[in-house]
Amino acid sequence: MNSELTQQLYRLHEQIQKEQEHYLGYPNAYDFNYENLAPFLNFVINNLGDPFVGNSGIHTCEVEREVIRTFASWVSLEDPWGYVTNGSTESNLKALAQGRNTYPDAVVLCSRDTHYSIAKIAKLLGLKCVAIDSQAQGEISYSHFYQVAKSLKAYPFIICANIGTTMKGAIDRIAMIQSLLTDLKIRDYHLHCDAAQFGGYLPFLDLGEIFDFRNGIDTMSVSGHKFFGSPIPCGIFLSRRGAHLGPHESKVEYIGSFDQTISGSRNGLTPLILWQAFQTHGVEGFRKRAESMMALTQYGLAEIKKLAWPCWANPHSNTIVLQRPSAGLVRKWKLAVEGDIAHIITVPGVSHRLIDLFVRDLMDEKTFAQAI
Amino acid sequence: MNSELTQQLYRLHEQIQKEQEHYLGYPNAYDFNYENLAPFLNFVINNLGDPFVGNSGIHTCEVEREVIRTFASWVSLEDPWGYVTNGSTESNLKALAQGRNTYPDAVVLCSRDTHYSIAKIAKLLGLKCVAIDSQAQGEISYSHFYQVAKSLKAYPFIICANIGTTMKGAIDRIAMIQSLLTDLKIRDYHLHCDAAQFGGYLPFLDLGEIFDFRNGIDTMSVSGHKFFGSPIPCGIFLSRRGAHLGPHESKVEYIGSFDQTISGSRNGLTPLILWQAFQTHGVEGFRKRAESMMALTQYGLAEIKKLAWPCWANPHSNTIVLQRPSAGLVRKWKLAVEGDIAHIITVPGVSHRLIDLFVRDLMDEKTFAQAI
Repeated sequence: MNSELTQQLYRLHEQIQKEQEHYLGYPNAYDFNYENLAPFLNFVINNLGDPFVGNSGIHTCEVEREVIRTFASWVSLEDPWGYVTNGSTESNLKALAQGRNTYPDAVVLCSRDTHYSIAKIAKLLGLKCVAIDSQAQGEISYSHFYQVAKSLKAYPFIICANIGTTMKGAIDRIAMIQSLLTDLKIRDYHLHCDAAQFGGYLPFLDLGEIFDFRNGIDTMSVSGHKFFGSPIPCGIFLSRRGAHLGPHESKVEYIGSFDQTISGSRNGLTPLILWQAFQTHGVEGFRKRAESMMALTQYGLAEIKKLAWPCWANPHSNTIVLQRPSAGLVRKWKLAVEGDIAHIITVPGVSHRLIDLFVRDLMDEKTFAQAI
Repeated sequence: MNSELTQQLYRLHEQIQKEQEHYLGYPNAYDFNYENLAPFLNFVINNLGDPFVGNSGIHTCEVEREVIRTFASWVSLEDPWGYVTNGSTESNLKALAQGRNTYPDAVVLCSRDTHYSIAKIAKLLGLKCVAIDSQAQGEISYSHFYQVAKSLKAYPFIICANIGTTMKGAIDRIAMIQSLLTDLKIRDYHLHCDAAQFGGYLPFLDLGEIFDFRNGIDTMSVSGHKFFGSPIPCGIFLSRRGAHLGPHESKVEYIGSFDQTISGSRNGLTPLILWQAFQTHGVEGFRKRAESMMALTQYGLAEIKKLAWPCWANPHSNTIVLQRPSAGLVRKWKLAVEGDIAHIITVPGVSHRLIDLFVRDLMDEKTFAQAI
């Protein structure tokens, strides 16, 4: 490698390191080190097609199956099918395609606070998507859901419930949605649980009733690069085995595998990353990690409240919603913003000290605003 | 990290290394070393959304834009839009979605030798896909194309031309397809060039007329993990700027970027890998690499022919199609098979010695078959 290239890479690495110093707005844990996987950067590892079918090339499908089975066990799914995706958009796409396979003329129902990928996917799949009102704190409005479901009763539904909305960290209550559907005698629906945001840590907070396959969920997506920590965006798609057989189940001789995945050629490194995370932390490690994260959220909330700066967080959420600060602070701390609110997320990697620094900046801004 | 995990990783690494010893059937170059990028495995690098719009998190979008512009310059596209995808299925999905955006009631036309992802994508997008007959060596049948296009004249088309079919390495002639469309006075079509297979090296063989944006191509996909070499499956999607505006162009405040991509959260390492490949080899390096590869294909062909074992290759193809050998050899050499044929691909990484070893196995098999 030439020295100019080495220098360019060095500068990029430095720049990224600097960017990370004020990283508070995004939901990605960054307390990891995967340099030990470097030797795997010397092979082209391709988990082509369905990891449960088998594969003849250079792949990490055994590891991938273990990742799927391990995560499935944490959400009470006994006989899972799934794969490690390139991120939750792919997981959601697979989920909605599976729902459409069962109910070709389904209408997608989801709250206005749902991640924008759902609307994007509904368009790709040619599915009508109806936005349900949200409550002020981001949770779906159950009364509006009831009203819409009643008026669209003639159609089957694909329902996307948020286990952690992107902006406000709200959890849609699965059991409530189901009881409304029962009330309406609606039986034809696919219930997808978009747990990209909170799916990594909720299983370790012993809140089974809000997030569990025993509740009649059909599919689930969870992000790999949020709570678990991964240098490469990735996700997990989960379905009950059998129910996963999608609209493209024909055998493709070329890869010696029925291809039930969206991607075809698939990243073989991300299953390895998730596997290492699962092995390194273990259930007990993740439990402590989740509890520390929740404690840090409470710390951040308390500190911001001391300034009388409007802020709040939903139950079991790592996302602190606050009144939008100046553009300067938004830029400096890479805050996510929407209208007059912003959020910070207390992911693993964020320290008490970082929160303190942010709060000091908020205080300076407030003092300045009062002075002028 | 615990020692058990280290040992497991070591064993997996050894196993992959062993698998690679007889790697002849797949189109992925493997003469690379990306261990130097290990320090980037310690950040979550997320090229969220459109790389040409800008991004506020930790990302490598500048590098990504350079990759897109560099590759675009090799295929005579002056003002490109595009992004680094997770592989050609995503590139093809983006291409067909863009085509559908222009022509909502389009019919997809492609040859029977087209990669299975096109049919999968057509189903996802709800597009009717009509398979055109192929010639014996895998190239589309122009007479059948003419016949089908004529009979479906009432519809606009999305045409997928193969710049290298997966199994037989055939190139569909863009100019021929266009002249047939002109004959039929058909003007409403989106012409997608699926150059996943050969798009990496053809630009360096001075064959501009068969593979070039000046020819009126609308979109193109090329694989990143084939000729260029990448440890992680990836690809490049290319479109003329402006024409790329798809069905999901709404501004998403959350990521500060119009999201024209399929993925949303995107791998920030693969643009770095491609960038390093582009910088390291350069145009001259790629030219030599492509020429050596073509010479190796001819060498392999000549050696297999010496055994009077039926084999052939299409023009400008690195894919040697041969009569299918025994299941044992298929397994040992990881050959791709289809009916009574198999193929080997002389990608960078494959040596003359490896070809010799394979040919010796073929000879042994032939001798054995004649003896019994």
